[in-house]
Amino acid sequence: MSHVQESSRTGHWVTFEPDGQHIWSLPSETLLDTARRAGVRIASVCGGRGLCKSCVVQVTEGLVEPPSHQDLEFFSIEELANSLRRACQTIARGDCKVEVSARARAVPLRTEVESEDVWVRPDPAVRMYSVAVATPTLECPTADDHRLMNALNEKFPGTCSRIDLDVLRHLPRTLRTHSGQVVAIVRFGEVIGVVPPGKGPLPGLAVDIGTTNIGVLLVDLRNGRTLASRAMENPQMSFGGDVITRIGKARSSPDIQKQLHDLVVAGINEAACELCESQSLGSGQIADVVVVGNTAMHHLLLQLPVEYLGAVPFVAASASATDVKARDLGIKAMPGAYVHVLPNIAGFVGGDHTAMLLAIGSDHEEKTIVALDIGTNTEMSLIHKGRLLSISCPSGPALEGGHIRCGMRSAPGAIESVEISGNQVGIRTIGNAPPVGICGSGVLDATAQLYLAGIVSSTGRMTKEHPRVRINEGQPEFVLADEREAQGAAIVFSQRDIRAVQLAKGAIRAGIQVLLEDAEVREDQIDQMIIAGAFGNYIDLASAVAIGMLPDLPRDRFAQVGNAAGIGAKLALVSYPHRATAQSIAAGSHYFELAGSVRFNTAFMHAMGFPDHKKH
Amino acid sequence: MSHVQESSRTGHWVTFEPDGQHIWSLPSETLLDTARRAGVRIASVCGGRGLCKSCVVQVTEGLVEPPSHQDLEFFSIEELANSLRRACQTIARGDCKVEVSARARAVPLRTEVESEDVWVRPDPAVRMYSVAVATPTLECPTADDHRLMNALNEKFPGTCSRIDLDVLRHLPRTLRTHSGQVVAIVRFGEVIGVVPPGKGPLPGLAVDIGTTNIGVLLVDLRNGRTLASRAMENPQMSFGGDVITRIGKARSSPDIQKQLHDLVVAGINEAACELCESQSLGSGQIADVVVVGNTAMHHLLLQLPVEYLGAVPFVAASASATDVKARDLGIKAMPGAYVHVLPNIAGFVGGDHTAMLLAIGSDHEEKTIVALDIGTNTEMSLIHKGRLLSISCPSGPALEGGHIRCGMRSAPGAIESVEISGNQVGIRTIGNAPPVGICGSGVLDATAQLYLAGIVSSTGRMTKEHPRVRINEGQPEFVLADEREAQGAAIVFSQRDIRAVQLAKGAIRAGIQVLLEDAEVREDQIDQMIIAGAFGNYIDLASAVAIGMLPDLPRDRFAQVGNAAGIGAKLALVSYPHRATAQSIAAGSHYFELAGSVRFNTAFMHAMGFPDHKKH
Repeated sequence: MSHVQESSRTGHWVTFEPDGQHIWSLPSETLLDTARRAGVRIASVCGGRGLCKSCVVQVTEGLVEPPSHQDLEFFSIEELANSLRRACQTIARGDCKVEVSARARAVPLRTEVESEDVWVRPDPAVRMYSVAVATPTLECPTADDHRLMNALNEKFPGTCSRIDLDVLRHLPRTLRTHSGQVVAIVRFGEVIGVVPPGKGPLPGLAVDIGTTNIGVLLVDLRNGRTLASRAMENPQMSFGGDVITRIGKARSSPDIQKQLHDLVVAGINEAACELCESQSLGSGQIADVVVVGNTAMHHLLLQLPVEYLGAVPFVAASASATDVKARDLGIKAMPGAYVHVLPNIAGFVGGDHTAMLLAIGSDHEEKTIVALDIGTNTEMSLIHKGRLLSISCPSGPALEGGHIRCGMRSAPGAIESVEISGNQVGIRTIGNAPPVGICGSGVLDATAQLYLAGIVSSTGRMTKEHPRVRINEGQPEFVLADEREAQGAAIVFSQRDIRAVQLAKGAIRAGIQVLLEDAEVREDQIDQMIIAGAFGNYIDLASAVAIGMLPDLPRDRFAQVGNAAGIGAKLALVSYPHRATAQSIAAGSHYFELAGSVRFNTAFMHAMGFPDHKKH
Repeated sequence: MSHVQESSRTGHWVTFEPDGQHIWSLPSETLLDTARRAGVRIASVCGGRGLCKSCVVQVTEGLVEPPSHQDLEFFSIEELANSLRRACQTIARGDCKVEVSARARAVPLRTEVESEDVWVRPDPAVRMYSVAVATPTLECPTADDHRLMNALNEKFPGTCSRIDLDVLRHLPRTLRTHSGQVVAIVRFGEVIGVVPPGKGPLPGLAVDIGTTNIGVLLVDLRNGRTLASRAMENPQMSFGGDVITRIGKARSSPDIQKQLHDLVVAGINEAACELCESQSLGSGQIADVVVVGNTAMHHLLLQLPVEYLGAVPFVAASASATDVKARDLGIKAMPGAYVHVLPNIAGFVGGDHTAMLLAIGSDHEEKTIVALDIGTNTEMSLIHKGRLLSISCPSGPALEGGHIRCGMRSAPGAIESVEISGNQVGIRTIGNAPPVGICGSGVLDATAQLYLAGIVSSTGRMTKEHPRVRINEGQPEFVLADEREAQGAAIVFSQRDIRAVQLAKGAIRAGIQVLLEDAEVREDQIDQMIIAGAFGNYIDLASAVAIGMLPDLPRDRFAQVGNAAGIGAKLALVSYPHRATAQSIAAGSHYFELAGSVRFNTAFMHAMGFPDHKKH
């Protein structure tokens, strides 16, 4: 033991393959942390807590500390002998070389901003006004702020009542450099920027911070046109794939909470800079920003404490819309620009859900609608007779490929669709690459196909009587792609994976049930079932219905609307009256907490099994 | 020469006597800069530009660089031989010991906040509300911000519409620590602080930033009572005693501008902390702050560029009132507290003048009034028939003891009053200490007494025919206290000092003249002559009239009102409607620029002589 302590007191050279990054590890640092410091991508769904296997690596040269007892639960003896380890649980004992698996390395693909562009009558909070400001003289040495305000109010009466202090700090030079010919950017009477004359767009940002991805639209506020869009992985992912993990990390220390804030801001700034560059703009020209996100993302962005969000009774610090200077959050924009953050509904129903409800026009909807966004938490609302009821179901990460034996994010090589016909298995992978794992839509398909093919029973038990079912550590697993097909380790779908899907889909279906019961609405009265979100956009509805995740309604009642939260953000950006609408949606929503609800737990128990598929 | 360069490349040990601070000087650093770094007080009226002699020191041991040609103009050969040097112009060549003269060391005394306390009906911008906020439950997990706002608006309808983001960051813990029993501090619908229940005062700060001194009042906003007051030297003094010097320094580099900002903020915070401590309060309880200052102080506090303030046509960046979060300026207060900065009138008529006009009730004044605040710049306003006309006269530092041979600030040992009767000279010093120099009120008295005694003619020429007049370098000087009386170097008042006073008083009188002419008012129509400011409070009116600085009006028309700017700040702090009044005073003032004015220059020429004193 003393030897181990000895060796971990000094660092070592670690080489990460296949890219060959060569990094000096700090004493006692895990391989995952070394990789993070160096910017080497290794997936970590549980955030480095040793609860999953997503960060698996192979130590191909050199010495690391021996596997722990815990590792024995995650790896077979053979795998351990093959030097497979979890990067988050492994410390180098000497210089070593580490192969990062394709699955752990996979950079998610489906991060485009997935939605139709919407048109909305532009009515932005921020407008631009071209003025000629008088030159001061000894006879008339009027102060710079007054000369600007006078010029504005003479040409555009009532436009301007104050000037942001930071803008004022630059105003004297700007006025003199351009001989008073300037364009003032004004937001509700406050000058938030003064720029040289010119006819460029008035760019604004609509940002959708998801737990997994950040979507950013660059929009011309003058006409509502989307100039460019970009999506990226949420850089907070290295602190855990799910919200609960990140909340836990943030609670553990103010430093980490600060880091999480800084990471998401850096991500937004990076995306914004790229988008602006693509349009020959500078990020300092961004005149307005609207952000939506779930409650945790919202709190981390605004540096609100998350400790009470993660514990009973799951209370948000804020459920109001927030207007804050972009500079106060570190977001790059015009000196005086604001960020408008859409209001949350509850601890686990965030501003992204509000944005989605805004996008689908829930405020003047007369039909009966269930709208949901599937994720680790699945937020859903029932709109019925002018009433809005919202809940959040703890559906877990299985439907996003998390906590699934061969699960992975949507990246090249991920199995995204599965068809089973007799002994034949047809798979399709993203990018038609050799299969390296299975992503969410594949998980859903695999479950449905296994059930429909009779390989999995209605209670979720997998038969051992199928040529592609093999036994691993006493549990059956279905081989989706064997070693040959996968050009490496086989891709399997295990009994345990089926159980994980049952928990997920059971929670979602039970949630729908509880919503309907509360409003005394029958399933068949649902006029529309709106499935929002990136994942929801990709799932096969037939599979979702086959396993009973969604009710069996006529197909034309379903709508997969993609990133509706992003659309909602854009609406609020381009048209400020939509901000008031969002506020009234959030304020008017009745939230029902499922934690501890007997009604939900009963529904959940019933919903875990698979429905009688004779109908299908 | 190469030897000099060589030696200045390394530092040396410098000991400052009489306090014995022992400091390592940086290469090529002047003794003044070394002293500044070490916090050793050495007066520097010109800010280290070598234009005055206020930073004189005696090198008692060790070697410094030889005197420059310029030094020969400031020192006699004997003085130089005695190793008298100006600290700002002297670089150590080896370890040395430096004696700082009592005059250079003097810490000003008359920095109390000099004014009667005024009563005003309290109508503060900020109020406190005691509420009981419900505890969240699973059945009702309302967000913290909504629960607080609901509690506030139920008990005090319409009180609250938003919560400062920084307050929100602390809200969840505060609510839970005090079981929801809290006091909300609200400013125009915005919660700017949430504190534990209790019956303490609601403290606010009224700050008057003068070029020389900072005055701070701690006031209970609930009843307008002044809890404590404190005055201190403006810490920017080490960057020069006058506004022009500091503007020059700030223009020279953004770093220095930042330093000047930081210094004044540190000063305010120091005073605020002391005041709060004296009342068993924390500075984090300060709920509101009002600041007044001249335009340069205003700009340095708000970090507005001063470059255009210091050059023709002397334009301020801002002449509007400013509301800014205290935290954005670095001023310690409640998390969401604001600083309200009173508006400037023009480049050299600042918010302190606005505050003075507010304090004297100029907005509803029907009499004809001249109100002035004497300083290096003397701002004055004429109020006549509802019209307000303002100017700023370049009166120079002489009346504050600056650029006067033996001039000094008001500190112990400063001659503050002079009486000459025949060959007898009676002097009174501050604190009755042995005389070390002469301060502003003494300068005025000395001039008047020398003139009235016939030792100085009406054109300002000093006779050589008086037993106390001696010749120094060809120029006569009057000995106020000889070597024996002064227990050291004699205190003299020189021909050059008389000239400096003539320039100062001529500018002030010419300013009054121009104001009256512009409004077509005769001198004897002035109903009241208000002399504000610390200096104005101490001058002998008879002396001021005798030398023609002020018109010869019946004495009951004069009022020495002390620190009226501070009173104005307090009015605006305790009663927010006074802020609007200040804004309308500033906006309604007509400013007349004297620079380049032929009318002023002519009046100035005439006003430099002394009036026929047969009248007196």
